[in-house]
Amino acid sequence: MASEFEIIARYFSKLGKTSPHTRLGVGDDAAVVEVPDGKQLVVCLDNLVGGIHFPLDTDPADIAYKALAVNASDLAAMAARPEWFQMSLTLPQVDEPWLDGFAAGLREAAEYFAVELVGGDTCRGPLAVAIQIAGLVPADGYVTRAGARAGDIVAVSGQLGNAALGLAFLRGEIELPETTAEKCLLALNRPRPRLELAPFLRQFAASAIDLSDGLLGDLRHILEASGCGAEIDRATIPVDAWIERQGEYGYALSAGDDYEICFTVAAADRGEIETWNRANPGCPLTVIGAITESGYRLRVGKESINLEQRQGYRHFG
Amino acid sequence: MASEFEIIARYFSKLGKTSPHTRLGVGDDAAVVEVPDGKQLVVCLDNLVGGIHFPLDTDPADIAYKALAVNASDLAAMAARPEWFQMSLTLPQVDEPWLDGFAAGLREAAEYFAVELVGGDTCRGPLAVAIQIAGLVPADGYVTRAGARAGDIVAVSGQLGNAALGLAFLRGEIELPETTAEKCLLALNRPRPRLELAPFLRQFAASAIDLSDGLLGDLRHILEASGCGAEIDRATIPVDAWIERQGEYGYALSAGDDYEICFTVAAADRGEIETWNRANPGCPLTVIGAITESGYRLRVGKESINLEQRQGYRHFG
Repeated sequence: MASEFEIIARYFSKLGKTSPHTRLGVGDDAAVVEVPDGKQLVVCLDNLVGGIHFPLDTDPADIAYKALAVNASDLAAMAARPEWFQMSLTLPQVDEPWLDGFAAGLREAAEYFAVELVGGDTCRGPLAVAIQIAGLVPADGYVTRAGARAGDIVAVSGQLGNAALGLAFLRGEIELPETTAEKCLLALNRPRPRLELAPFLRQFAASAIDLSDGLLGDLRHILEASGCGAEIDRATIPVDAWIERQGEYGYALSAGDDYEICFTVAAADRGEIETWNRANPGCPLTVIGAITESGYRLRVGKESINLEQRQGYRHFG
Repeated sequence: MASEFEIIARYFSKLGKTSPHTRLGVGDDAAVVEVPDGKQLVVCLDNLVGGIHFPLDTDPADIAYKALAVNASDLAAMAARPEWFQMSLTLPQVDEPWLDGFAAGLREAAEYFAVELVGGDTCRGPLAVAIQIAGLVPADGYVTRAGARAGDIVAVSGQLGNAALGLAFLRGEIELPETTAEKCLLALNRPRPRLELAPFLRQFAASAIDLSDGLLGDLRHILEASGCGAEIDRATIPVDAWIERQGEYGYALSAGDDYEICFTVAAADRGEIETWNRANPGCPLTVIGAITESGYRLRVGKESINLEQRQGYRHFG
């Protein structure tokens, strides 16, 4: 039976894109990295628990890919470039085909996002994947949730609700056209963190957050951190045609798991969004509303719904 | 019922000693820190799983304290000073008295080790605490497992086996005198990472490792990484009088959970160990053997036991 050390050596050595700033990688008590002059380090830690964040029978390659993607997405929202990650993998038992798949998905994601695995541990226990990711940002170039100001435009990247549609489809709760189902399962299992957006956010965004808990709840975090309000228009929220046809906007508004970026820019920079869109058709940005002095409202046709008391997805409760 | 955000705000805000190098702490998608000129960042991630690394009914303050301590110990072994940590806490349910205790233990440890909590997450799931810790070391001043050379002295800090005695006592497997039991339970539940040893290690150690899996297995890592052998003498291993009386050296040799440091220094620096011991009675260093060209042997009286085929504690297997 494989030991922890054998598992690490076999599956998790030389994984990802080696950073030029790594002094010591996997294999010692800790790793050693260098932060170049003029850069700051941006760090976050997220844990995906089997049976809570993903069904236990999820393809192990998808589990690994997504665990790294959701962490990379947090750095994208800070306008940082991911550089290194560490992983703690808890497993009920050593299952080699499962580990082969998991390592392949992790390797694919690490190469795609150009990050290097520099450490972590594996141990026996209920299935869970905790990943800590660290990235670089030019000094004080990071973007937080706290910079929105009344008059700013609110925008989002991509299309919202697809991952939630994919999950509902998987559970047999809804039917989807074949190509839509394919797209939505990909959004669910292989979310694509918007790393390409970091330079745009650094230059233009006043605030930003990644959409993990659902648009309404996540935008609320921006409003709370910035001390302002917002009014968004449901008709402008970018969604798949199925959501529009069925009127099932809940998937896009509060189901979460999108890993798109919601951000605000000064109204004067609206043209920059259009410029971006012409140059980056793979990462479309859509204006969905505006920051106000106070309040939180969703326009639905001629109605204006007060959102101040509603909450997004909560892990407990 | 409390949400994840409320739990973080209530229990895990402003926890530990604020680092002067933190730009942005808990509460955004990620934290932002600065690594001062001339320093490198040393990082590690360790996960403690309920029912595997500690009994589920362990005092939550002890769980939290130990989770941070074992990570700080990894940095101590690299000769680094811990500065920040992130934590992912997985909990079966929101239990406020439990969380009160956990947060108190974490706060105590964070203040004692002078580290700042800068992020992480909490979610529902089987009890587990993953901690990622990051520290600073003067550029290229870190110590690895890979620098031991034939002729070096092998030394350890403190007394080995006490945590394992504490666990055996707790399980009713052994009886201990009251003061010994107290000391051993403290070693088990409140391990004291040898942070004070970092400057000494930077100056004199050729290699170092922290003792988490047991002396024999951990020293083996040094030998493998350094490409050399060792001969240690059981009679010199610092242990509690109970182990000596009972002849139960297994607790000290292979039970693990000590979080003392095992390191090697050039034979010429033996005097530095004596100098350290005179100045630091709270962190005694003991010479237990020497590095050899090859082989791995334990002297027991007139016998010499070949250790090459034996293994320390393994998480799987």
